[in-house]
Amino acid sequence: MAQTMLEKWLTPARILTVGFAALILIGAVLLSLPIASKSGEGLNFIDALFTATSAVCVTGLVVVDTLTQFNLFGQLVILSLIQIGGLGFMTVATFIIIFTGRRIGLKERLVIQEALNVNSMEGVIRLARNIVLITLGIELFFAAILAFRFALVMPIDRAIYYGIFHAISAFCNAGFDLFGDFRSLTGFVDDPTVNFVVMLLIILGGLGFTVMVDLWKAPKPERLSLHTKLVLIMTSSLLLVGTIGYFLLEMNNPKTLGALDWEGKILASMFASTTARTAGYATIDYGSVSDASLLWTILLMFVGASPGSTGGGIKTVTTIVILLYVVSVITGKDSTVAFRKRIDPRTIYKAFVVAVMAALLLIGVTFVLTLTEDKEFIRLLFEATSAFGTVGLSTNLTPELSPVGRLILILTMFAGRVGPVTLALALTVRAHEKALIKYPEEKLFVG
Amino acid sequence: MAQTMLEKWLTPARILTVGFAALILIGAVLLSLPIASKSGEGLNFIDALFTATSAVCVTGLVVVDTLTQFNLFGQLVILSLIQIGGLGFMTVATFIIIFTGRRIGLKERLVIQEALNVNSMEGVIRLARNIVLITLGIELFFAAILAFRFALVMPIDRAIYYGIFHAISAFCNAGFDLFGDFRSLTGFVDDPTVNFVVMLLIILGGLGFTVMVDLWKAPKPERLSLHTKLVLIMTSSLLLVGTIGYFLLEMNNPKTLGALDWEGKILASMFASTTARTAGYATIDYGSVSDASLLWTILLMFVGASPGSTGGGIKTVTTIVILLYVVSVITGKDSTVAFRKRIDPRTIYKAFVVAVMAALLLIGVTFVLTLTEDKEFIRLLFEATSAFGTVGLSTNLTPELSPVGRLILILTMFAGRVGPVTLALALTVRAHEKALIKYPEEKLFVG
Ligand SMILES: [K+]
Ligand SMILES: [K+]
Repeated sequence: MAQTMLEKWLTPARILTVGFAALILIGAVLLSLPIASKSGEGLNFIDALFTATSAVCVTGLVVVDTLTQFNLFGQLVILSLIQIGGLGFMTVATFIIIFTGRRIGLKERLVIQEALNVNSMEGVIRLARNIVLITLGIELFFAAILAFRFALVMPIDRAIYYGIFHAISAFCNAGFDLFGDFRSLTGFVDDPTVNFVVMLLIILGGLGFTVMVDLWKAPKPERLSLHTKLVLIMTSSLLLVGTIGYFLLEMNNPKTLGALDWEGKILASMFASTTARTAGYATIDYGSVSDASLLWTILLMFVGASPGSTGGGIKTVTTIVILLYVVSVITGKDSTVAFRKRIDPRTIYKAFVVAVMAALLLIGVTFVLTLTEDKEFIRLLFEATSAFGTVGLSTNLTPELSPVGRLILILTMFAGRVGPVTLALALTVRAHEKALIKYPEEKLFVG
Repeated sequence: MAQTMLEKWLTPARILTVGFAALILIGAVLLSLPIASKSGEGLNFIDALFTATSAVCVTGLVVVDTLTQFNLFGQLVILSLIQIGGLGFMTVATFIIIFTGRRIGLKERLVIQEALNVNSMEGVIRLARNIVLITLGIELFFAAILAFRFALVMPIDRAIYYGIFHAISAFCNAGFDLFGDFRSLTGFVDDPTVNFVVMLLIILGGLGFTVMVDLWKAPKPERLSLHTKLVLIMTSSLLLVGTIGYFLLEMNNPKTLGALDWEGKILASMFASTTARTAGYATIDYGSVSDASLLWTILLMFVGASPGSTGGGIKTVTTIVILLYVVSVITGKDSTVAFRKRIDPRTIYKAFVVAVMAALLLIGVTFVLTLTEDKEFIRLLFEATSAFGTVGLSTNLTPELSPVGRLILILTMFAGRVGPVTLALALTVRAHEKALIKYPEEKLFVG
């Protein structure tokens, strides 16, 4: 009986939420142990919790520098949290279950379905296996390239380790680095190899696994699903528009792009556009960019990557669905059409709810931060958006946050990764029975 | 034939847009004439255009001080623009037509319907007449009270003029004042008479005429329409929550509420909460409030007053419809219900579109301002929201704006008053024919 109650309580949304939370807690305990620190002294729990949350939610915001604070054990804990968080712990769980030969019930399938954002139950397990295989394959391949590049500037064993660490961190859109002093990738601002490999990893990781599988299976463009087409269109346009924006906004800023030659300027603009959605590696100092560039980055971070990917934000498809619907209303169209397919009204509704909840969350978090932190408003909004979109870019403000500010960002990263809608569903008592009374409808005047 | 083309082109949305624009241009020309200036020298056209837009759109942002710049003629031009803009020029046109005995055709009725935000065509003309009579009645009554109060500190003829000017400006949520030096009502921060009269005028003006008529006709609460109930609930909760917010945020700020006694603190908080939606009179200096209070004000300004009123913003009903829908999704309800009435799905869609378009407009305007003005981000966001919501509050930044910044705010005030959706409808070629091809529907993953 008690078990039935628990099983009934454990809806897919709740399993996801509780699972992420448990993983974060385990990570926080491990990272706070003295055996994880270089100094041999345990990290205080709130900073360990911040780091674990940032890793599991693949955010990349850091209150302590990863290289300076953690020894190899600590770094490997972070890397594992990133890999599990990036894949989605349910995918990992599924893979382990398959590997150990256990049967998977309906309930587990439902959870995996929710975690992977697929509509049909069929092939969920095969999808989970494919995801793990594709991920490991891509990470290994690019880790090798990075290792060769790093071997030019460091010992070979360290280069291999750095190749693996940064390939995983980039593909999972996690943004953690081992270059010390909160420097991220600023040392490689005009290095083509590092830039292109990391950008490619970020973009692939941000497409979402369903898109990757769809691309793999359907080589002919016309056979791709509407979802895949919209993801590809949005991803490429956002990358292009983002690049042009950074180039124009920062080309004359001596602290960022101004010092670089033309190729360097273009490369750094491309990287900034890529990393904003939602990787978090930085090759320029976001503490030195203009307010216009901060707002530009905030917008890109808010949109984020694609559904079912390692990235965050409200997602590309959500954004395009809203924009397409608004355009269809203004042009007096009956339905919202893309690539000769009508978009389901329920999808449109859900997109609006996702965007509104994200905006409300972000406004609330920024409001509280204006009370607890004595910093410029746009930097607080930037940091909040970075945490919500699990981006990890920072105007160098995160390490200076008050303890309350750190706690708020921990919760924001968590809400951003789980998704505000899923989180709200997990926290609410839902009306299971259908409404018995059918109320009369009434029109209202809005706007 | 040519006339038919024009008539076809003149949709209700376009008549409203063109009408507002024409009124503004006439006002701008009059205000730029030397006979409108105290100095006898004509005001430059862009500042005259800014003032006329601010008056017609009942915004109240000013680049020149009304008392210092304009003589009696100029002030009366502004007052007329406020009164016409506040009533909606179509209401005024209707009234004139009725007064002169002309018949009103279907087309005119459609325009009036759009302008007054009513659903049925019946009684549109009676409504227009009632609106004008209610408005003049309320303004006259409170003008008398204000005149008595002002007579204590100025000659009686000036007190009567000030009573009329500020009663009209307050009821129309316009926020223009004649106290000089951009001071607004700061001189009356703890004066109960001025505060309560002005607050009452602002609140009544912000309810919307349909609500006022509904309240007039249906004294029993249960017979009020859903629209009226939602407006009353939202208006009173926002006033209460706003007041508490300002009180907590500013009570210890020596530059705003800190210097006042408890009654003064409460009165000033009430006034700040009232004026933010969307009157624009100020009794405290918004250049001295905290960032948290600026954000608080931005949120209240964004919500604004109620539909079909003299106020701006996305409107109270739009906000509550979105919130009710989000709550119904999270709690797993089939339909969105308020006061035992289901809210029409088309209303919900329209509310989302209004909010999204407003947010996009605001982000775009603020982004351009970060490029043209060298000011703090939150002040630019504040000024943009104030212009969009036709509020008129300012962190004293408007008079310092660059010419491009002024032009942008002129367009923002206009878009805010006409409404971004109506404006977009006016600017777009609509698909009149029904879509011939019915495309298949496809679900997408969002968020
Ligand atoms: K990230
Ligand atoms: K106003």
